[in-house]
Amino acid sequence: MSIRVGIMGYGNLGRGIECALKQNSDMELVAVFSRRDPATVKILTEGVKVYKAEEAVNHKDEIDVLILCGGSATDLPVQTPEFAKNFTVVDSFDTHARIPEHFANVDAVAKENGNVAVISAGWDPGMFSLNRLYANAILPDGKDYTFWGKGVSQGHSDAIRRVEGVANAKQYTVPVDAALAAVRSGANPELSTREKHTRECYVVAEEGADKERIAAEIKSMPNYFADYDTTVNFITEEELKKNHAGIPHGGFVIRSGKTGWNLENNHIIEYSLKLDSNPEFTASVIVACARAAVRMKNEGMKGCKTIFDIPPAYLCNISAEDLRAHLL
Amino acid sequence: MSIRVGIMGYGNLGRGIECALKQNSDMELVAVFSRRDPATVKILTEGVKVYKAEEAVNHKDEIDVLILCGGSATDLPVQTPEFAKNFTVVDSFDTHARIPEHFANVDAVAKENGNVAVISAGWDPGMFSLNRLYANAILPDGKDYTFWGKGVSQGHSDAIRRVEGVANAKQYTVPVDAALAAVRSGANPELSTREKHTRECYVVAEEGADKERIAAEIKSMPNYFADYDTTVNFITEEELKKNHAGIPHGGFVIRSGKTGWNLENNHIIEYSLKLDSNPEFTASVIVACARAAVRMKNEGMKGCKTIFDIPPAYLCNISAEDLRAHLL
Repeated sequence: MSIRVGIMGYGNLGRGIECALKQNSDMELVAVFSRRDPATVKILTEGVKVYKAEEAVNHKDEIDVLILCGGSATDLPVQTPEFAKNFTVVDSFDTHARIPEHFANVDAVAKENGNVAVISAGWDPGMFSLNRLYANAILPDGKDYTFWGKGVSQGHSDAIRRVEGVANAKQYTVPVDAALAAVRSGANPELSTREKHTRECYVVAEEGADKERIAAEIKSMPNYFADYDTTVNFITEEELKKNHAGIPHGGFVIRSGKTGWNLENNHIIEYSLKLDSNPEFTASVIVACARAAVRMKNEGMKGCKTIFDIPPAYLCNISAEDLRAHLL
Repeated sequence: MSIRVGIMGYGNLGRGIECALKQNSDMELVAVFSRRDPATVKILTEGVKVYKAEEAVNHKDEIDVLILCGGSATDLPVQTPEFAKNFTVVDSFDTHARIPEHFANVDAVAKENGNVAVISAGWDPGMFSLNRLYANAILPDGKDYTFWGKGVSQGHSDAIRRVEGVANAKQYTVPVDAALAAVRSGANPELSTREKHTRECYVVAEEGADKERIAAEIKSMPNYFADYDTTVNFITEEELKKNHAGIPHGGFVIRSGKTGWNLENNHIIEYSLKLDSNPEFTASVIVACARAAVRMKNEGMKGCKTIFDIPPAYLCNISAEDLRAHLL
């Protein structure tokens, strides 16, 4: 029998979940919930209905796992504990600093109600975290490096769009090749923010706007750009649509560490992602975690879990025997 | 209280385990067992005794986990089931084709005696396998590629040494850059054995030996070299000692896969290792698995396990809270 999945929230991520479910033969989409008027929400899967978010609880017996696709700032801190009362849930909560608090809130509710809730599924937090953990477990004497990009930062693109005279914008975070090379050499460099990443901005200015002032304002924006080498390229709306429509991302997690009686040998562990679509890849990780969440629930586990707690085999639609025979 | 570890077999791998234990403050070496005369086995750790292999069972109450450092061809198929009767054990069984059989043998004994036995710990099988699994779970529509090297193949070096007129030899397996680039481009190429790796041989010839005949014999050796572009370099014993004394290795696991409603987006997941010392890195993975094995045993689990079954957090000497706060 298929794992029956509900999607809560139908933006880029929700749509990515829908696409990922189509690729996983052991799972099926049974309902989409939205805060918008269901009549205005067009989904891709034939025969699946869209309901108002508040109706979800009425469908709890038809759903094995509910995937929460809201934002980390205001949606998930409320939604994940709320829905963990009635559902096995998975979210992609990605505010790193608030994970312990979110975990505690979700864990209390999930335990009380006998449910499993997987939080912070995705790639960072998620697969990048997992690779930091494995590399730390293997090489206790070492140093971690995480680089992001080349990829679109939604938050930084939004910040540019708020600058006066900007009609549209896209921002790419780009890891610095020289920094990557230094890390890979085993030199364990100390790297400043500026040395690790550059920021490339593609900006559509409003007609008559002062481009010099816009560029200066972007480059000096505290937190977002001031600590980076930032380049600002002015382009037309047509060029933006044509050349910068995608949502690519990716990055590198590297640990450089020593072994040997006198720590005489060095090792480099590197994990990297090159993603055409950030939301679709994130969704693909979440869907694998949703499978694992249902398995853990069926085994009688309860409470909040992260990718750190999931036996890897639980993520895969392949039997334990086949995994050992073909992937080990 | 520390996890008390015994080492069975003191070659390169056993010595690597000893070094790794020194780096893990929650673990301590309590005994080394060898088939050699204990008086002839000099270990690095002060105050720890070396015993005959057959005495191990007399020390079972002093040992939380016994790490088996024998070879996969003849040692481990016998040793792992044998010691799983009385110990929590970890091995690095690496004959991929015989893993299902080894698993079944070990599982039966470990279950019957209430022990946990982790098999095939290391990097391939081990971390490479794990990365194949995660990447398959995330991207069901895709293609796996594994490249090895640049690194020393012990088996191939041995094969060269058996050629008449060869005094000594070292063989490196080298991934082909063009093949790596093609895979990373997302082109999903079909690659022949010859296209993926080359083989570099450094050979010390005996005095008066026919070097042309030796080179021809190496290059045409079936299974080992005939299917590869092989280069043979003749050097002196001094050069071999000076420039080829290490046991480096490494490699790349790459999955290229598609997502999207019409599979329109491509993603590349890459994991790579660059290791100064193959046995020390392997040992470091094994030691992390030994920690996990003891935790699983303490939780009442039993039977044979692989890295696929181990919740990642169990591998780490870091609390679940700290992992979530700092690595997630």
